[in-house]
Amino acid sequence: MNAAQLQQRIGHWQARIEAALDRTLAPGDAATGRLNAAMRYSVLGGGKRLRGLLVHVTGEALGAGGTDLDACASAVELIHAYSLIHDDLPAMDDDDLRRGKPSCHRAFDEGTAILAGDALQALAFEVLVTGTRGLPDAARVQLIEALARGIGTQGMAGGQAIDLGAVGRQLDLAGVALMHRRKTGALIETSVALGAISAGCTGGPRYEALRQYGSEVGFAFQIQDDILDVTGDTTVMGKLQGADAAHGKPNYVSAAGLDAARVAARRHRDAALAALVTAGLGDTLLHDMAHFVVDRAH
Amino acid sequence: MNAAQLQQRIGHWQARIEAALDRTLAPGDAATGRLNAAMRYSVLGGGKRLRGLLVHVTGEALGAGGTDLDACASAVELIHAYSLIHDDLPAMDDDDLRRGKPSCHRAFDEGTAILAGDALQALAFEVLVTGTRGLPDAARVQLIEALARGIGTQGMAGGQAIDLGAVGRQLDLAGVALMHRRKTGALIETSVALGAISAGCTGGPRYEALRQYGSEVGFAFQIQDDILDVTGDTTVMGKLQGADAAHGKPNYVSAAGLDAARVAARRHRDAALAALVTAGLGDTLLHDMAHFVVDRAH
Repeated sequence: MNAAQLQQRIGHWQARIEAALDRTLAPGDAATGRLNAAMRYSVLGGGKRLRGLLVHVTGEALGAGGTDLDACASAVELIHAYSLIHDDLPAMDDDDLRRGKPSCHRAFDEGTAILAGDALQALAFEVLVTGTRGLPDAARVQLIEALARGIGTQGMAGGQAIDLGAVGRQLDLAGVALMHRRKTGALIETSVALGAISAGCTGGPRYEALRQYGSEVGFAFQIQDDILDVTGDTTVMGKLQGADAAHGKPNYVSAAGLDAARVAARRHRDAALAALVTAGLGDTLLHDMAHFVVDRAH
Repeated sequence: MNAAQLQQRIGHWQARIEAALDRTLAPGDAATGRLNAAMRYSVLGGGKRLRGLLVHVTGEALGAGGTDLDACASAVELIHAYSLIHDDLPAMDDDDLRRGKPSCHRAFDEGTAILAGDALQALAFEVLVTGTRGLPDAARVQLIEALARGIGTQGMAGGQAIDLGAVGRQLDLAGVALMHRRKTGALIETSVALGAISAGCTGGPRYEALRQYGSEVGFAFQIQDDILDVTGDTTVMGKLQGADAAHGKPNYVSAAGLDAARVAARRHRDAALAALVTAGLGDTLLHDMAHFVVDRAH
């Protein structure tokens, strides 16, 4: 598939993800209007939707295509949005800019931003369970377990804790890798897992290979993020270039250097591609997605 | 059952809840040690465990007694702990004292407190799904749905948003009631629902009556909390007396007066008791629990 075709397919999925999120985020009643507005502000109208894309592309690669995938894609995007809102808070990264507009606590207020993140996490689980009634209950339970594990102390939240503890210190490469695999990699791996489970692939070698693919894609993605943090353009990225260095935060580039980071991004992309071949899905769009993650400029 | 017997039973359940929470909150690995410590600090060693108690007492009233109830009780207590951590943050209620010791962000730091709350929410869902393998998958899915709905914008998080928006304003009684029913009532109602679902009561008139019981008990509980906020003793309560007034926060007493609040607490307790009779469970410990909630001094 050439780049233009891939971009078209991605655009198709992104529109579908946006529409599903819009349906999920009801404006709500007057009493909670500000909270609902903050949730919609932070979720809608932006982002690459990499996590939601991976749900859909994985599901499609395995022959699924139902609305259950919309629920799974919404769930991971809601979780991602919640994590960005909380990461941007003054007590965390203190970022004023997100996706090219004021971060949630700047556009609303800090209390509302904390609550919006909290409510988005709950909504993710609600959507994941209410939007998957077409699947066997055993699969729905597995979806919930995969998501809960992926975002807890052994996953995303644990990664953010490592990140928080690393400010002003220099982590070695193993420390950065652990942080990235949890903070970013775990939710991306979970996205692939949800797509697989929705398609009836709930265990065994193919499932494990797909999780491996997701883990490696996630790691490669974050290394590329670190590269772009140093080399990227603020306007193109929609967030401030050089933010990690400005915040005294270690990342892959500060730990290993730019050239080594570029090599590592490609190496983990290739590990993802190898896992995909193991899964017997080497000729699907998941292959292109792994390249997309590393070749992107924002 | 007399007061001493009731207290003994409650003590038995509280110890069981504490032990289950202790097992659930593993110290974790070194990389996330501070996060895990903050989670344990905020969850263990304190609190009435009303929500966990209601899970167990409801389950027992319906003839259940398995470890599934431990998972459900842990889940609601983890959610409750997360909500207290976030409510205490400077951007929310800015409380320095909780359960007689420094609140989480005072004992640790603000970023860690935000993360601890986030991770506790995820852990609640993880425990609810991994600790209930003895139940049919259909029931497990229903547990997840009940919890997710109970703590989202239509439930606990929505109530906290109303609370946040009400600072410095005087809500009318209907506004206070809506806030209380969501912020406190929804999770207490959910606790009863989880106990019922675990015991195989998953719908129909008895399930609805039990939810009604939980909703009324929750409302009565919060009114009593408001009464104690005005009349209580800081040492006995483990949090500052007069905190609502000091924060400019409306509550039932400021909206209706102390005498009317006392009448209302009893009225909603009686509505809970009536729902219990409808459920055919008027002679169970749930009856005593409704009294306990309103008669307590802390």
